Order: sequence, then C-alpha cells, then structure tokens
Amino acid sequence: MSGHAAGEPFEKATYLFLKGKYPSNVFKQYEYLNDIYLKHPQTISVADRNALFESPTVLFLLSRGDKATKEWSPTNIFEEKQNDTADIIYHTDNFYDMIDIKTRNIDKTAQPPNIISAFKLAKTCAHMIDNQEYDIFRLNYIEIDWKEAGENLICQAAHYANLFKAAPSKLYINWAAAMQIQFHVCDLDQTWTGTMEEWAHGYIRIFVESARRRCQKMMDDYVTPFLKYI
Amino acid sequence: MSGHAAGEPFEKATYLFLKGKYPSNVFKQYEYLNDIYLKHPQTISVADRNALFESPTVLFLLSRGDKATKEWSPTNIFEEKQNDTADIIYHTDNFYDMIDIKTRNIDKTAQPPNIISAFKLAKTCAHMIDNQEYDIFRLNYIEIDWKEAGENLICQAAHYANLFKAAPSKLYINWAAAMQIQFHVCDLDQTWTGTMEEWAHGYIRIFVESARRRCQKMMDDYVTPFLKYI
Repeated sequence: MSGHAAGEPFEKATYLFLKGKYPSNVFKQYEYLNDIYLKHPQTISVADRNALFESPTVLFLLSRGDKATKEWSPTNIFEEKQNDTADIIYHTDNFYDMIDIKTRNIDKTAQPPNIISAFKLAKTCAHMIDNQEYDIFRLNYIEIDWKEAGENLICQAAHYANLFKAAPSKLYINWAAAMQIQFHVCDLDQTWTGTMEEWAHGYIRIFVESARRRCQKMMDDYVTPFLKYI
Repeated sequence: MSGHAAGEPFEKATYLFLKGKYPSNVFKQYEYLNDIYLKHPQTISVADRNALFESPTVLFLLSRGDKATKEWSPTNIFEEKQNDTADIIYHTDNFYDMIDIKTRNIDKTAQPPNIISAFKLAKTCAHMIDNQEYDIFRLNYIEIDWKEAGENLICQAAHYANLFKAAPSKLYINWAAAMQIQFHVCDLDQTWTGTMEEWAHGYIRIFVESARRRCQKMMDDYVTPFLKYI
C-alpha cells in the first residue's frame, strides 16, 4: 500500500470493523437508502419515498435529490457519492449516528479538512427547530492519523469528536472553500454543555454573523479599493 | 503512462518544445526569477531585488512574497510553486508572454478549470492603470486535450486563447472556489477588439459588479432566511 496518498484503506477498515461488530445497524449512507427503498418496493413517488424517513431533519441529511430519488429502482440503485453527508450511518430504533472518517497523513502538514458545508448545517439546524427534533441524530467525526513505515501504512492514533459538543462559536467557516467548516478532529472543542436546541440556535447565530462579516470583508477588499478605477 | 490522471506529461512536453525552440526566451516562472537574481548577486534587499523588474505590473505577477524574496540566495533558489501565475514565461526585450497550460482528459466531463484569481486579476488591472502599462505583458492559455489509447496517452487537440481578447463581461468568477475565474480555453470568447486600457477598466467594472452581486446573494441566501431562528 506504500505511496497511497489518501489513507482510504483506513476509512475502509473502520467501516469493515464497525460493520462486523454491528452488522444490522451499520451502513454506508447509500446502502442505507438502498435498503429502505428495497424494503418498500411499492413506494414509488418522491413524496412517498420521502415519507419513509422517520424525521424531516434526517430526510434532509440523508436523502439524495428529487431527480435521483425519482430515478431510483431496484435495478438502478445508489452508489457512493462524494458529497453525501456521512461515510457511515449507525442506526438504532430511534437514533441516527452519522459518522465521517477523516484520514490524515501525519508526516505532512495539511490545512484542516472540509467537514460539512456551513450552509447545509444551518439548514439542518433550521429543520431541527422547525420540527422540534433535538434527539434524533448526531454528527460524529473520527480522525485516523497514519504514516508510511517502509512498505506499509501504519495507524499512529485515532481521535473522536461529536460536532454538537463543540461550542458553535469555535467553528471556523472557510467561505472561499465552498463555505466548508474546517477542523482537525483532534483539535475540535468539546466543551459545549448546552442542549441541542441551544446549539441549533447558537449555530445559526454564528453562521449569520459570519456571513455578514464575510460580506463586509468582500465590500472592503473587492469593491471599495477598486471604485476609483471605474 | 497509462492511467496517469493529470495529463502533466503534456504540460512538460509543451515546455520542452518551447524551450527547445526559444532556449534563451522561455522559462518556467521560478527559473526566470532564479535567473534574474543569479545575474545580480550584489542585489540583496527585497526593495533592490524588486527594482530589477522592468515593470511594477510584471513584478506583481511574477515575484514571490517579500519573505521568500528576502530568503532567496544562490544556495536557496526558488522551486516550482502551485500558485505561481504562469507555467511558462516567454520573455523578449520589452514583453512578457505568460503562458498557462491546461490539460484536459476529454473522456471525462469536468467543470472548467481554475484559470486565475479574479482578485489577482483585478489588482493586475489596477497596476496597469496606475502605471499606464498596457503593452508589457499578455496572459495566454493553452488547452491540451488528451485521452488514453491502450498503453498510451494521446493528444487529440490543442487550443490557444489570449485572456485580453475575451470580453471581460464573458468571464465567469466562481466566488465559492477561491474567487477563481474558470473556463475551458477552447470556449473562451476571443471577440474583444478594444484597447488594453479599456480592458483593464472594463474588467475592474465587472469584478466590482460581481462582488456586489455575490454579497447580495449571500445576504439573500445565508442571512435573511435564518433571521427568524435567532
């Protein structure tokens, strides 16, 4: 595996480990969707397929677009997709743990990875508030630190964090990088002790403030200095 | 070379072809910088090194940051850098042709590549206007379309475009992708017939308009809909 740049083997190993341990609860996001739709072959329309989800917030986070959902059939099932919310779903009766694996070559300095779109997270919080859903899911992140050792790749350390244990004010939104929230999992604040409802409101507040600051900075940097040339 | 994803062999071949044809005029950007500084070993300070350039606009486009320029020495020369302006410089006495090579696997659909930061281009135009430099450089782009053919990669077509022959209003700025101007070279408008001075003013005008529109859209999408949750 030497030379493998992206550390995917560790992502795969993590999935296989969890799947082996909880075979009926652990899914890839697309597997979970295929599973639901395959179990309900009579459910065809987008509206009816959406109704199979227990929660509007979970529907928002897990489902594909209307077009893809409409075109889904037992002979045209979903495959893995780059911008799915989660790498892995751990689903029990009334709860969804969504898990993203971030692999990291510790011999290289790299900027913190993209975690989730800040806009998608704001919409998620709005769904939570609109539907009063504060105990239905969690967004979890696992960081796996690896390095090359001769012919092999070895795992040096692993870290876990729960997004909703991070104070919203500690999250960094990189507006220029497609509005992604970026952090190394090992560095994520885990001190938040408020409720999920407080978190959802708190996050929307910092998202709106950040968007306003970004606009002001765009005007200061990209508009004002150039007006004299027009 | 089969399986090579990025088409770099074609970039390299283009450079070697041009270098072979015009050995004393063609450089990689970092080679050009190394060349200038090596020819003036007594010139040490950043200000003095900057003064070696014939033009403030060219200085802005080609030079590295102050820190890197200060730390440069004959035993610590520049190497290739990802965000250099140009892949290749064609330098004659009073003119710089800056050339970027965009390789494209025509068997894949891909979004148009990053060409140059819209902000960097706006600053370039401001330098042109401030210094009345309208005949010192050009930004050129070459697209090389390639495909896999058995064991080999083959070049299927090549395209050329001059950025300053494109009407500024036809340029697309992707604000979420680090403000990059994006286009496929083969699709770039080449109908502009105005002067470089008109181009510089025209581009700054569309850049400022685009920044304002982007701000307005950010307020509409990321602020207004969320105010009710705060």
